[in-house]
Amino acid sequence: MKYDDDIVALATPSGAGAIAVIRISGAKAISLTAPLFKSIRGKDLKKQKSHTVHLGHIVDAERTLDEVLVTVFKDPHSYTGENVIEVSCHGSLYIQQEIIQLFIRNGCRMANPGEFTLRAFLNGKLDLSQAEAVADLISSDNEANHKIAMQQMRGGFSNEIKKLREELLNFASLIELELDFSEEDVEFADRTQFKDLLSRIQEVLKKLIDSFAIGNVIKKGIPIAIVGEPNVGKSTLLNALLNEERAIVSEIAGTTRDTIEDEISIGGIGFRFIDTAGIRETTDVVESIGIKKTFEKIENSEVVLYLVDGNQLMTQEQNIPLLQTATEKLQEKHPSKPLVIVINKIDALHEKQLATISEQLPEALLMSAKTGLGVEQLQNKLLDFINLGALRNNETIVTNSRHYNSLLKALEEVEKVQLGLDEDLSADLMAIDIRQALYHFGEITGEISSDDLLGNIFANFCIGK
Amino acid sequence: MKYDDDIVALATPSGAGAIAVIRISGAKAISLTAPLFKSIRGKDLKKQKSHTVHLGHIVDAERTLDEVLVTVFKDPHSYTGENVIEVSCHGSLYIQQEIIQLFIRNGCRMANPGEFTLRAFLNGKLDLSQAEAVADLISSDNEANHKIAMQQMRGGFSNEIKKLREELLNFASLIELELDFSEEDVEFADRTQFKDLLSRIQEVLKKLIDSFAIGNVIKKGIPIAIVGEPNVGKSTLLNALLNEERAIVSEIAGTTRDTIEDEISIGGIGFRFIDTAGIRETTDVVESIGIKKTFEKIENSEVVLYLVDGNQLMTQEQNIPLLQTATEKLQEKHPSKPLVIVINKIDALHEKQLATISEQLPEALLMSAKTGLGVEQLQNKLLDFINLGALRNNETIVTNSRHYNSLLKALEEVEKVQLGLDEDLSADLMAIDIRQALYHFGEITGEISSDDLLGNIFANFCIGK
Repeated sequence: MKYDDDIVALATPSGAGAIAVIRISGAKAISLTAPLFKSIRGKDLKKQKSHTVHLGHIVDAERTLDEVLVTVFKDPHSYTGENVIEVSCHGSLYIQQEIIQLFIRNGCRMANPGEFTLRAFLNGKLDLSQAEAVADLISSDNEANHKIAMQQMRGGFSNEIKKLREELLNFASLIELELDFSEEDVEFADRTQFKDLLSRIQEVLKKLIDSFAIGNVIKKGIPIAIVGEPNVGKSTLLNALLNEERAIVSEIAGTTRDTIEDEISIGGIGFRFIDTAGIRETTDVVESIGIKKTFEKIENSEVVLYLVDGNQLMTQEQNIPLLQTATEKLQEKHPSKPLVIVINKIDALHEKQLATISEQLPEALLMSAKTGLGVEQLQNKLLDFINLGALRNNETIVTNSRHYNSLLKALEEVEKVQLGLDEDLSADLMAIDIRQALYHFGEITGEISSDDLLGNIFANFCIGK
Repeated sequence: MKYDDDIVALATPSGAGAIAVIRISGAKAISLTAPLFKSIRGKDLKKQKSHTVHLGHIVDAERTLDEVLVTVFKDPHSYTGENVIEVSCHGSLYIQQEIIQLFIRNGCRMANPGEFTLRAFLNGKLDLSQAEAVADLISSDNEANHKIAMQQMRGGFSNEIKKLREELLNFASLIELELDFSEEDVEFADRTQFKDLLSRIQEVLKKLIDSFAIGNVIKKGIPIAIVGEPNVGKSTLLNALLNEERAIVSEIAGTTRDTIEDEISIGGIGFRFIDTAGIRETTDVVESIGIKKTFEKIENSEVVLYLVDGNQLMTQEQNIPLLQTATEKLQEKHPSKPLVIVINKIDALHEKQLATISEQLPEALLMSAKTGLGVEQLQNKLLDFINLGALRNNETIVTNSRHYNSLLKALEEVEKVQLGLDEDLSADLMAIDIRQALYHFGEITGEISSDDLLGNIFANFCIGK
């Protein structure tokens, strides 16, 4: 399954910068680079040791393209497990392009997305779930995502799966051995030990499957719906939450034109704030599409923030009862969603008004996004609502829906085996179910894989990785 | 003048990619990295040779930040001439930020723009004009810019200047020696040889100064004004010109809101196409601001393209004489600007119409930007107008206005010396002029420099270089 051609790609982000790195991998990577590289000290690249760096020029016949550093990695001691050359050149777009073109003219082919990692997988440098973690690691933008991807890349998840698979495989062999001696009615596989193993496997699988609920939202950013009319201070709130942490912000245009999603990292966890229309307006036209959308967004969120301008609230006496009705309605419609009422802009209220609010809305969080008052309480509250136990305890968390599906299928098969065992099913039927369970375990780590599956996984990688 | 602190910066373009490179430079770069790096093979980073690469993890106490490759460069065998560490990590924004922060917490300071190259200059790894060429090289986006920057970076320009400076310095010493023996009326400096040298210097300086005219436009992109009414096919033309070459395109919003500049590389040379209003409208209101702007743009361009829709041209008989009048007016106003009349959309004209145009406008270039007809002729015509002799002959071309100014001042002083020599001026007065000339030579290569000057030059660099 090894490749016999050589690939080239830009490994660093596209754009201009101080330096850029171009990566070449394949059996001929070094011999193919040698004539294109003129070492300052007249060294022959082909004679250099692995993991050494050499200063020189990339030359295209008489033309000097750039002064570069070339790093040599020798099969199998490289990322891909093949010979690898890394050319560290000046970060001009023009130079990057010219060097890549030069390598293509000299026998390389442009790498497909993720092809370096695919080769690493095919050469046994990584298993499939580790390879997938590489892509997760590259796209990780907060501590939680980074931690989970890092653990997975270092083999935490696959080791757990591989260990179970090995034990199960061992039993499978024994059961299959029994089939060969079926006329003699012997039991090589100790049924009590087997039952123990099966319940252990089920326990681990269930735990991993359960972890996907949190893993999936952590990966995508925990969705928080902000219910509130315009000008109650949504953007000030988001800025206030953000300023507490030196985080990477990104603004993602939502699926509908009127929705802006803001992604903010709080305590190392990514939160995705989803702006929704206020409820008060919507009480008028209950059947309107606007409401439906708001309720949909609330349904898809983990926590609902009901943001109110304290000053607006104080303009009329009936506003507080109206707010109570609105929030009660919300809770009725979404009984399982944690709801936080946030009274914003309290810096502009006087003592008596604050007392009234505290008395009539005891559960409300008083805040001034402008001065920062109450922001930390809100952050802690948001973190409290999310069950981060598994993350804090360094437990394995499943974030990949492919793994989740394989785990579900594996569990299903293991339960069948368990049932067969309980009902004293014949060894040959049980063996089939065990093989099926093993198959699904193998899918996760890539011991079982198809070209289609690999194609799908690596197509989502960036080029150069 | 050496620095005693350690700096860190991202060296690759910002953004997410397969890998990113973080660079640390300073006396303590290696010893400071050692405790933050856990080698896979348990190696001690401090004991590794220069130019070697090591696989391991960047760790922050108990927390593993990433699996990385660390490259060691030892003083003086590095870019900066100091100890340098390059960390090649996964290209996530989060990881990049975390690793940089880790190094800052452990004694590094964030590098200023261009500080790595500044240190390289101060440590004698590059002279000043070579350092400036690094920035030019990074921003080069076509063959011509790349070639000039590359030649300058490899010392082509500075060697020429340094050689002249040395010879002049030699004479300066002899002249100054005469001053010490002034009562004895001796001549250590051979006046004939000196005259020879001075005329040689003047010749070289004039040639370099002259090269700035073309060097400066090549660096900024050769400005071509396109005169033409809307819908005559300007954007189709630009696309057609572009498609002939796998070039890097960039669209720069012009200084005025209604001007779009398009940069296109033709034959390796950058051309900047500047859209201007048509002349026909402007013949009505000769004094309008619009016209003034058009004429200004034409004045600042190297060539004027007058683009006309062939079909529009054929709608009325008087259109051709009108066009002739308009172009004649243009030539009158800008007698020295080469003007190319381009009749576009000829694919929609029939034979007879084409014959009429060829007869009445023999100098016009017939083209169909849509089908590509005539595009190559236009490209060749544009290249012909620009005097690229110096570029083709690998001569040194000055592109930097700082160098240009120093060369002008140096020439002025050398001419004074020449005059002094012709008028038999006393050695002490001549010595002053020679010293002044030497000073301006030294400014170019950085033998003479001030903190202000260096600050100005390196502030224009990107961070990480």
